[in-house]
Amino acid sequence: MAQLLSSSCSLTISSGNKPYFKPFDQCSTAFSTHFACRTTPSSFRKISLREEKPHRSFSVCATAVSSRQEASSQTSSGSHPSSSEPSKPQRVMVIGGDGYCGWATALHLSNKGYEVAIVDNLIRRLFDNQLGLDSLTPISSIHNRISCWKSLTGKSIELYIGDICDFGFLSESFKSFEPDAVVHFGEQRSAPYSMIDRSRAVFTQQNNVIGTLNVLFAIKEFREECHLVKLGTMGEYGTPNIDIEEGYITITHNGRTDTLPYPKQASSFYHLSKVHDSHNIAFTCKAWGIRATDLNQGVVYGVMTDETAMHEVLCNRFDYDGVFGTALNRFCVQGAVGHPLTVYGKGGQTRGYLDIRDTVQCVELAIANPAKPGEFRVFNQFTEQFSVNELAALVTKAGEKLGLNVQTKSVPNPRVEAEEHYYNAKHTKLVELGLKPHILSDSLLDSLLNIAIKYKDRVDTKQIMPTVSWRKIGVKTKTVTA
Amino acid sequence: MAQLLSSSCSLTISSGNKPYFKPFDQCSTAFSTHFACRTTPSSFRKISLREEKPHRSFSVCATAVSSRQEASSQTSSGSHPSSSEPSKPQRVMVIGGDGYCGWATALHLSNKGYEVAIVDNLIRRLFDNQLGLDSLTPISSIHNRISCWKSLTGKSIELYIGDICDFGFLSESFKSFEPDAVVHFGEQRSAPYSMIDRSRAVFTQQNNVIGTLNVLFAIKEFREECHLVKLGTMGEYGTPNIDIEEGYITITHNGRTDTLPYPKQASSFYHLSKVHDSHNIAFTCKAWGIRATDLNQGVVYGVMTDETAMHEVLCNRFDYDGVFGTALNRFCVQGAVGHPLTVYGKGGQTRGYLDIRDTVQCVELAIANPAKPGEFRVFNQFTEQFSVNELAALVTKAGEKLGLNVQTKSVPNPRVEAEEHYYNAKHTKLVELGLKPHILSDSLLDSLLNIAIKYKDRVDTKQIMPTVSWRKIGVKTKTVTA
Repeated sequence: MAQLLSSSCSLTISSGNKPYFKPFDQCSTAFSTHFACRTTPSSFRKISLREEKPHRSFSVCATAVSSRQEASSQTSSGSHPSSSEPSKPQRVMVIGGDGYCGWATALHLSNKGYEVAIVDNLIRRLFDNQLGLDSLTPISSIHNRISCWKSLTGKSIELYIGDICDFGFLSESFKSFEPDAVVHFGEQRSAPYSMIDRSRAVFTQQNNVIGTLNVLFAIKEFREECHLVKLGTMGEYGTPNIDIEEGYITITHNGRTDTLPYPKQASSFYHLSKVHDSHNIAFTCKAWGIRATDLNQGVVYGVMTDETAMHEVLCNRFDYDGVFGTALNRFCVQGAVGHPLTVYGKGGQTRGYLDIRDTVQCVELAIANPAKPGEFRVFNQFTEQFSVNELAALVTKAGEKLGLNVQTKSVPNPRVEAEEHYYNAKHTKLVELGLKPHILSDSLLDSLLNIAIKYKDRVDTKQIMPTVSWRKIGVKTKTVTA
Repeated sequence: MAQLLSSSCSLTISSGNKPYFKPFDQCSTAFSTHFACRTTPSSFRKISLREEKPHRSFSVCATAVSSRQEASSQTSSGSHPSSSEPSKPQRVMVIGGDGYCGWATALHLSNKGYEVAIVDNLIRRLFDNQLGLDSLTPISSIHNRISCWKSLTGKSIELYIGDICDFGFLSESFKSFEPDAVVHFGEQRSAPYSMIDRSRAVFTQQNNVIGTLNVLFAIKEFREECHLVKLGTMGEYGTPNIDIEEGYITITHNGRTDTLPYPKQASSFYHLSKVHDSHNIAFTCKAWGIRATDLNQGVVYGVMTDETAMHEVLCNRFDYDGVFGTALNRFCVQGAVGHPLTVYGKGGQTRGYLDIRDTVQCVELAIANPAKPGEFRVFNQFTEQFSVNELAALVTKAGEKLGLNVQTKSVPNPRVEAEEHYYNAKHTKLVELGLKPHILSDSLLDSLLNIAIKYKDRVDTKQIMPTVSWRKIGVKTKTVTA
């Protein structure tokens, strides 16, 4: 982290009723739809920026008016059965809560009556700056996002800005917020990013592995009952020629039987970092009694959830570029602007997919039904599986209904992966807990292509093609020229 | 690494015929046995200390007289069939070559006619200083060791002192030495060390994982044909209730079959770091065509090899303390000084063991029979398996022959591990390549207890008992008081 975040801040602001945030009514021009925003600056009790460690990170701790009492009185309004049980976790720390999945999850949990704190170093925004990329959808600052949410709903989200690789910062966040559950999205989450050059490969593994180790130590030290909900990836399993189970497989070998961790075959330094995390977490569950749920998530698509749709300031990011864009989001943008859908290689690569509305459901289900002390539980978090060719066909068909003429072309595969393979991954545990999946064929029209079309004037076609090669990654640090 | 190695050095010495090393004849008082040492300071052609990066590490590059021509002319004198085949690797970089296994291996390979370079940051010596520990056997500086070896045999070993986590340093070492094979012992290798406190846990994973990533990138960038021989550990497998295979297991599941990486269940942050390495290396073999052999080594015992026995200055380290001491070495020291053998818990913990003379054989066999490009080969490197109780019984019996009255006592197990379990691990691949194992019952008398007795006056009994608890590890950095 240090090598990417060399800026530091020694600013200290201590304000009673005056928020650090730009007063909400100054942003009103951005609020064009759906809801009136009520500015309530006087509700902020404490906002401070303080330097945690020189040259490392700084933290913003914005504690809004939501006292624990106020929030917990709202908890029973949550739709989930857990919300009415006082023994279930109520205070959820969302690490990486400014990111694509994290932001949607933070709002969803807040809406369901949980008390939510976001912990984020905002480095995802820095990656865009450094690589010259941008979300298709315009996204607001985390400060404005949280302010807007408060104005719309009356619900507060606490904000801790800093780096979880900085254990001092993380400790203070834990001691201050006292989470009952931690949802950990706070990792570098792009496979292509991890394959740009040596320094990004090293950064990805160091940032992800050490950050997660720190979270485990923070739970052990400060909140031993806290339930860790960790985002893994279906990519940890690779593409074995046998069915993929949920985390474990029972093997009979030479007449003896054991249930063991499912073998991992990750195919980028990013995916590998998640494999490392899984092993580390499993060990701490056994050795320390940590309670953990590993959500091996498939490829997420879509941008709108019930909460992010409430106001443009709450709008989620939508990545379509060759580094951070997931396959389906990219295809929708390509379809919207008349760019051929770029299928890598033969297109037989098959993966699990899910709507971001299901991501937020799954995380809430995991929190509401926590793992037992010492349990390392693995859920495969996706709803449908498709090959890339099938995705392209679905986008083509949906595009036709909207009057789009969608073409597809194969481009050389920048990755090293099987392009034709068996793939059958189990994903029943979250359904058993109550997941009601959204189906891609519906979402394509109501939550994907229409968004891509709405913002098509913001598309930068230079960002679409793959620029990172699995085989050509070198040690020289890559820079982006304008 | 940076947090433990904050010293830096800006010294630059450029000497023609004058070595940085203390002239050899000044050390002569230490050379009391076996061989006359011939001092040949004029043979050093180039020795320089140069700062690679501020605040990180510094490198000493000592290129001794051994020209490639000279060394390769000796190669055919090596006993192994490979040595006479010019296509086999001749230049071997031993990372961690100042450590317990690394030093013995470097000398063995040099003796067999390979051109050897040692790459080491000497941090193992710093660990001893910081924790107040010491080897039972007195060990010389790496500079004197190499000098002595040169004097005794005429064989040169190049020395690069620096940190492989510093890619600039590692790159220069690769470009300068141009290895055909890299033997990678350069990791923090103690499970208890990794469980002392959070900072050591993080250090262990960061140091080991990033160091290995750097080695992989260096091979890809500078020496793509170079064979990586990486030291793993049998501890990666844990203690499954089925037979342990060598790296892979063929699984038939729901009517389909695949051969997959053997599931890993490591039980310390150290063992986990090796699991992470294994996954990273496997990926680069597939993606980049790296050729790699992972030696999943058992617990090593013994101190003498043919080469280290040649002179006291060459003597290897012998750790018996609760942090770095392996079980059998510790038992021998306990037997020698009349301390009860400390069996952790029930003593049914069963592991693979091997004599250090077999470690050096195995590494040479791996180098002489390299993996193919793109192959990730795993050998289980041990010769016999014992429970801790069986070890204690063997030491007791051998002690009796030497007139020792050896007692055994159970102490609370500081680790989290099964104390009674099934254990049957395959280890045939190295035997198929020609390994001739030493048997513990022989070695106990000729290479273990006698060494412990010889140096028993150096034993610090305070070091023997376990001081690190798997369950009590905390975030506060532990310091050692006198």
